[in-house]
Amino acid sequence: MNLSVDGDRLWDSLMTMAKIGATAKGGVCRLALTDLDRQARDLFIAWCRSVDCSITIDQFGNIFARREGRDSSKPPVLTGSHLDSQPTGGKFDGAYGVLAGLEVLRTLNDTGYRTVAPIEVAVWTNEEGSRFSPPMIGSGTFAGIFDLQYARDQIDEVGITQGEALDSIGYSGSAAVGGRSVGAYFEAHIEQGPILENENKFVGAVSGAQGQRWYLVKVNGDEAHAGTTPMTARKDALHAAARMITEVNRIALAHSPYAVGTVGRLYSSPNSRNVIPGSAELTIDLRHPEDDQLEIMDAELREALKEVADDLGLLVDVEQDYYAEPISFDQTCIGLVRSAAENFGYSYRDIVSGAGHDAVNIARIAPTGMIFIPCEGGISHNERESATLKHLVAGCNVLLYAMLGMADCD
Amino acid sequence: MNLSVDGDRLWDSLMTMAKIGATAKGGVCRLALTDLDRQARDLFIAWCRSVDCSITIDQFGNIFARREGRDSSKPPVLTGSHLDSQPTGGKFDGAYGVLAGLEVLRTLNDTGYRTVAPIEVAVWTNEEGSRFSPPMIGSGTFAGIFDLQYARDQIDEVGITQGEALDSIGYSGSAAVGGRSVGAYFEAHIEQGPILENENKFVGAVSGAQGQRWYLVKVNGDEAHAGTTPMTARKDALHAAARMITEVNRIALAHSPYAVGTVGRLYSSPNSRNVIPGSAELTIDLRHPEDDQLEIMDAELREALKEVADDLGLLVDVEQDYYAEPISFDQTCIGLVRSAAENFGYSYRDIVSGAGHDAVNIARIAPTGMIFIPCEGGISHNERESATLKHLVAGCNVLLYAMLGMADCD
Repeated sequence: MNLSVDGDRLWDSLMTMAKIGATAKGGVCRLALTDLDRQARDLFIAWCRSVDCSITIDQFGNIFARREGRDSSKPPVLTGSHLDSQPTGGKFDGAYGVLAGLEVLRTLNDTGYRTVAPIEVAVWTNEEGSRFSPPMIGSGTFAGIFDLQYARDQIDEVGITQGEALDSIGYSGSAAVGGRSVGAYFEAHIEQGPILENENKFVGAVSGAQGQRWYLVKVNGDEAHAGTTPMTARKDALHAAARMITEVNRIALAHSPYAVGTVGRLYSSPNSRNVIPGSAELTIDLRHPEDDQLEIMDAELREALKEVADDLGLLVDVEQDYYAEPISFDQTCIGLVRSAAENFGYSYRDIVSGAGHDAVNIARIAPTGMIFIPCEGGISHNERESATLKHLVAGCNVLLYAMLGMADCD
Repeated sequence: MNLSVDGDRLWDSLMTMAKIGATAKGGVCRLALTDLDRQARDLFIAWCRSVDCSITIDQFGNIFARREGRDSSKPPVLTGSHLDSQPTGGKFDGAYGVLAGLEVLRTLNDTGYRTVAPIEVAVWTNEEGSRFSPPMIGSGTFAGIFDLQYARDQIDEVGITQGEALDSIGYSGSAAVGGRSVGAYFEAHIEQGPILENENKFVGAVSGAQGQRWYLVKVNGDEAHAGTTPMTARKDALHAAARMITEVNRIALAHSPYAVGTVGRLYSSPNSRNVIPGSAELTIDLRHPEDDQLEIMDAELREALKEVADDLGLLVDVEQDYYAEPISFDQTCIGLVRSAAENFGYSYRDIVSGAGHDAVNIARIAPTGMIFIPCEGGISHNERESATLKHLVAGCNVLLYAMLGMADCD
C-alpha cells in the first residue's frame, strides 16, 4: 500500500466547508435542509464533479458521488457522513466523514488508481435530528428503517415538513431511496468523546454503537398566580420537570460508567415570571452499550417520573419516540480498520461509539465499519469542537486503505 | 347610604371587555401595549366619555377618566387597575378594578350625585410585567418610583422598547406622569388566592401587601455531546437549573405558610435533544409579608444556588432585579372598606395581598386601600379564572361607598 491522502487538501476542504454557516465563536450552524445546508451540498457536488464522479440524488435528498470501478456490476463500497450540524455545532462533526470520502476520491483520481468495485461517497440527509426529529433519518430511510412518506411528514418547530424543506432547497431527487446493494460501508468521524485523546491514540476501530432510547415527556399541572397560591396548593409543572431532570441524572449515574442520560430540551408554559407554570415538555435521551441495561434504565425512568408526578399531584405522559438497539459492526470491516492503522503505524484501540451515526443504520443492510479520530477535550456538539491535522490525516488514510481492501477483494 | 351599583351593567362591561384578546379556552391574552391593549383602552375611554368624564393620558400612557366634584381644587379620590393581562390570563384580573371604577362613575352619573372632591378612574400601563419587566411600572412611574426614561427604555423579548410600543399604539400622552396630589386611592381586585372562598367571605379588607424579591439567574456550563460525554465529565446547565428550582421550592416551603417561591420562566440553550445544555436562564420570585423573613430567604437562596453551581462545577450569576417592600395600607381607607362591607351586610375579613398591585405603588404617595373579592378556586393568571356576579357587585358597592366616604369628607 503506497497510496496516501493529501492532508493539506483535506484541511483546506474542511475549512472551506466550515465557512458555510460559520458562527462568531468559530463553530458552525448549518441546520438540516436550510439554505446553508443547500450551499454545503452544492459545494460538495461541485468538488465531486471536478474529479469525474457522477452524482445521484435520491427522493429524500441523500447524495451519492460515484467513481466507477473496473467491474460496474459489483455493489459499490460506500463511505460518507452528513453536512448538517447542531445549532451550535463544530467544523468536523459529519463534515469530516464526507470530506475524508472526497479526499479518497481525489487521491484515487490523482493516481489514476481504478478499484474493482465502484467507490461512492454519500451525504446523508438530516443526521443531527436537531431541526427535524428523529436523527439519522436520511440513512435510516435508505436502510429501510423509515418510510419515505414518514420521513417527509416530520415537522420542525414552526410546522414546516421535512418534505417541504427538502423541496424548497431543490434536493428532492429522482432516485429511489435505498433498495440497492451496498458492498461495504465505512464512516470516518471524530470520536466526540475523550477516550482516544486520554490514551493518546490516533485511531479508534469502532466495534459498535450504544443503544439509545429517546423520550418526549409532557407534564400537566395548573397555572396559577405566583404570589397568592400557597406552596402546598400548587401544581407546578416546571417544579415537577426539574425533579424529573435530577432523576434522569441519578439513573444514568447509577449505571456508571457506560450509561448516559440527558435532558437536552425543555419548554415551560406560559413562561411568565409571576405565573406558576401549568405545563412543561422535556426530552430525555438514555444510552447504554447493552440492551438489557438500557431496558432496566427505561423501567427505572418510567417509575421515577411517575413518582415525581404522583408526589406533586400532576399528570405525566411519557412517550418513547426513538429507539436504536446497540449495534455490532462487521468483523471484516473492523479488521480492515485495525490493519490499516497498523499498516500506517498509527496507534489505535477498539472503541464503542457513544453517539449514533449514519453507519449504525447502514450496518443493517451492509457490512459496516467506522473509524474514529480524537477531538480536542472530547468536545463536540459545541462551537469549540476541534481536531488536529495529524489525526484527520490518519483517519483518512485508514479510510482509504479499508475502502480499497473491500473494493479490490473478490 | 342608598346608592348601589348596577350588577348587570358591570357584568356586561366585563364580558364585552373580555372579548378583546379572548382565548379559545375562555381566558384573555392582552399583553401590555399591544394592539389589543390599545383596543381595550379605546373602549374604556369611549365608555367614560359617554358619562361626561374628561380624559387625560400621561406620558407613560396611564389614563385618567375624571368626574368633577363640587370643589375642583380638592385632590381627586382615585380608583383603578389595569387592562393588560398575562399571556394566558383571565377576564377579571385588572379589568375588574377598572370596570368597577367605571360602574361607580355610571352610578353617580345616573343619580346626578355630585361628590365634593373629584372622582377619577385610572388605567395603569403594564401592571403584569409579562411582556416588559418590571411589573406595575405605570403606577410606579406615577408614584415616582421609576423615571419615565427608565420605563420607556425597558425592552421586550424581541428588543422593542416600552416607549416604542407606547408610541406605536398612540398612547404616549402629553400630561406629566404623577407629580400631583391624590386624595385617596382604592383598588378593587379579585383575591387571586383561595382564602376568601375557603372562608365563604364576600369581601377582603386588604391590610397590606407581601414583600417581593425577583431574581434573574444565569447558569453557565458547557455544551457537549449527549451520547459521548461521561456523566462525571459534564457541566450540564439545565441539570444545575433543575436543582436550583427544587431549592427555590424547598426554601419557600421551609418558611410556610406565608412564604411563596416560584420559578416562572426558564430558558435552556441550545435546547437541542442530543446536546448537553451549555447555559440556562431562570427567574425566581420570592414573597413574604415580613421583610426580615424575606431577607433570610434571600440569603438562603443565594447560598443554595452557589452550592448547586459549585457541586456541579458551573458558574452562576444571581441578579435581584426587582424588590417591593411589604406595604401596610392606610388605616382610614381600610376602615372605610370594613364599614362599607358592614353597611351592605357583606361578610368580610382582613387579608394580606399575596400579589403585587398598582395600589402598592400608589400607597407611597396617597392614603390607599384595596377591596378583594373571591375568585373561583383561588385561580388566577389562568384562562379558567372566574368570579361570580354577587361577589363582583359586593366589591363594587364597597368601592363606591369607600370612595364617597373619602370624596365627601372635609
